Amino acid sequence: MIMEGGQDNERTRHYYKIDKIKESVLQSLTRLGEKIVNNLENGVFPEIQLPLRATSNIIYDPNLRQYVLGDKYILRTTKNVKHLRPFAQVIWISSFAKKLIKAGKTSTLRDTYYVAIGEGIDFEDQDESDEAIVELESLLGHPREDLNIFPEERASIYGDLVIEYTVPGFRGKRVDLSSHPDGFAIGPALTTAEFIKCGAEVLFVIEKGAVFARFVEEGADKKYKALLIHTAGQSPRNARKLIRRLNEELNLPVYIFADADPFGVHIASVLIHGSAISAHLRELNIPDAVWAGLYASDIIKYKLPSMKFTEQDAKRLEELKRDPRYQTDPWKRELAVFSKIGRKAELEAFSRYGLEFIVKEFLPERLAELTKR
Amino acid sequence: MIMEGGQDNERTRHYYKIDKIKESVLQSLTRLGEKIVNNLENGVFPEIQLPLRATSNIIYDPNLRQYVLGDKYILRTTKNVKHLRPFAQVIWISSFAKKLIKAGKTSTLRDTYYVAIGEGIDFEDQDESDEAIVELESLLGHPREDLNIFPEERASIYGDLVIEYTVPGFRGKRVDLSSHPDGFAIGPALTTAEFIKCGAEVLFVIEKGAVFARFVEEGADKKYKALLIHTAGQSPRNARKLIRRLNEELNLPVYIFADADPFGVHIASVLIHGSAISAHLRELNIPDAVWAGLYASDIIKYKLPSMKFTEQDAKRLEELKRDPRYQTDPWKRELAVFSKIGRKAELEAFSRYGLEFIVKEFLPERLAELTKR
Repeated sequence: MIMEGGQDNERTRHYYKIDKIKESVLQSLTRLGEKIVNNLENGVFPEIQLPLRATSNIIYDPNLRQYVLGDKYILRTTKNVKHLRPFAQVIWISSFAKKLIKAGKTSTLRDTYYVAIGEGIDFEDQDESDEAIVELESLLGHPREDLNIFPEERASIYGDLVIEYTVPGFRGKRVDLSSHPDGFAIGPALTTAEFIKCGAEVLFVIEKGAVFARFVEEGADKKYKALLIHTAGQSPRNARKLIRRLNEELNLPVYIFADADPFGVHIASVLIHGSAISAHLRELNIPDAVWAGLYASDIIKYKLPSMKFTEQDAKRLEELKRDPRYQTDPWKRELAVFSKIGRKAELEAFSRYGLEFIVKEFLPERLAELTKR
Repeated sequence: MIMEGGQDNERTRHYYKIDKIKESVLQSLTRLGEKIVNNLENGVFPEIQLPLRATSNIIYDPNLRQYVLGDKYILRTTKNVKHLRPFAQVIWISSFAKKLIKAGKTSTLRDTYYVAIGEGIDFEDQDESDEAIVELESLLGHPREDLNIFPEERASIYGDLVIEYTVPGFRGKRVDLSSHPDGFAIGPALTTAEFIKCGAEVLFVIEKGAVFARFVEEGADKKYKALLIHTAGQSPRNARKLIRRLNEELNLPVYIFADADPFGVHIASVLIHGSAISAHLRELNIPDAVWAGLYASDIIKYKLPSMKFTEQDAKRLEELKRDPRYQTDPWKRELAVFSKIGRKAELEAFSRYGLEFIVKEFLPERLAELTKR
């Protein structure tokens, strides 16, 4: 598919969307502040209503095809002395986010904690400031990235896609993501960029750096007209956001390749179903993405070198088997195979058949299987 | 400094150097094979001499300013049944490396292990194949990167430097490393690229991704005409190699910024002095690089939010204090301060003074101190 989003009005629309999000967040923050100031001026104890983020309020939405919060709320009121501290913390985070957006700057969770300390805000530790940020996310219905609070970059991307930046200092500049074979780090600039021209027809998401490098070296991007994303383990949120955008805006089908072990299964599942801790957010999961392996049954089918489960693997597997997200195939089927064989294998294990095997043999076989279904 | 290495003869020289290394490795491998075949044909038990990689043979070379191996060797002879297994393992790695170089492909340590398994080579686990690779490195005097065995990419780079690739499929193509603000992943392609045009005058090496992003966002690259490298913790070898080349070929002074804790001290030290486990190799350390912080004394000087040492930190500190690499200042002085205060701080801790502080205040102060000396 050749996508030409580079028309002037298209481009303006993307900038408009980016600016609109910031504007909407700023408005919500301003309204929150005004409400509290009004309360105080009228001699009323300020209160905020927060969606309840407990298991009892996490439900699966079949339309959105992800876990979302139900309609239970908790009331945080300044009438209650015990509520004062977390109330003030959320308000401070709100004011910090407003400053960030206005200044066009970004921060990390850790930086935010230290800025709070510097301003004399009483956070016991980073866990407490992280929690206040999550509360603000749930209050506004915006992920922290929209508040300019980003995770550390770690994931990377490679392939036939030209992007145009929207971040200050780079707005309007373009870069071709096939121009650096070691990959482009996925940070705030890439996550918010506009897609200008895409020669790819599919997206392969890969857990391991070594396998990402193998896919580049064996030309998987050209053979399959594929973009390649390396998540470096559990995918950081900026990479999840980018994958979601590539899937939605460019209609690229997404295939996920992770190790055949309980952690690899979880990596694929979080990308597809979202995570319970992000149930208060949208647009961070990719419901249409397909778990493409490694399956437990691949260990048998391909006679892969494998390792015995550790105690931790076994424990993790039992947890997954009880999780509602894994009650359908291929999840259920493969978890049963794991239980039976009690062994795990890595993506690199295909190298037992030579370095070319994974791209030349395994990949076309798996894609044929998955598209047949 | 504006460096114009982009002349045709310069470029040819770089390709020549890259090709020359591969040629030299291939010759060494061929000689090794020929020697063994000759031995066998003449009814002599084949033997190889390996530099002894034990503490007793690791010495500091004041000329090279790094740890190197002394002149003790061990003899590995096929006369001894116990030697047969490791002997055969090194020979298999040699033949694998030769195939890699001839095919212009790269591999990782993990891939190499699996290829070995596939060919029925008896390695107990990856530790054993890793060890055989290190033995081959010491035998040839070449790092495994010269054998096309690369670590996983994880580090990234940003700044005013145009490079030209030498890897197959990209040879002759150029990319400007200031064109992607989230950073370019440092893998085999970047490590072996030629430097074409550099507007930077200094290189900042940064342990943390959040601080790398902060430096980019605050324009440290422009204010200080600096290239920025993010090592993501302990620097992978491809990043160390690239830093060394930037220091040697472009004469860029190198400043290292790591957390103020025993692990951060170690990260800086390995970049400068090399690591004991790589004492058999050259060109992976940067003797002229300067440890620029965070110092233990910065915790006091800047009143940084800090945390108590864990038991592990305290234990690690005692080890460092006994290590010959830390007997001079600033190491000795700062280790003493760590002992006294028993506390650690992160680079992000400067955010207590706002997000700009680290680049606007701390950085110029530290650079002024270090250049005064």
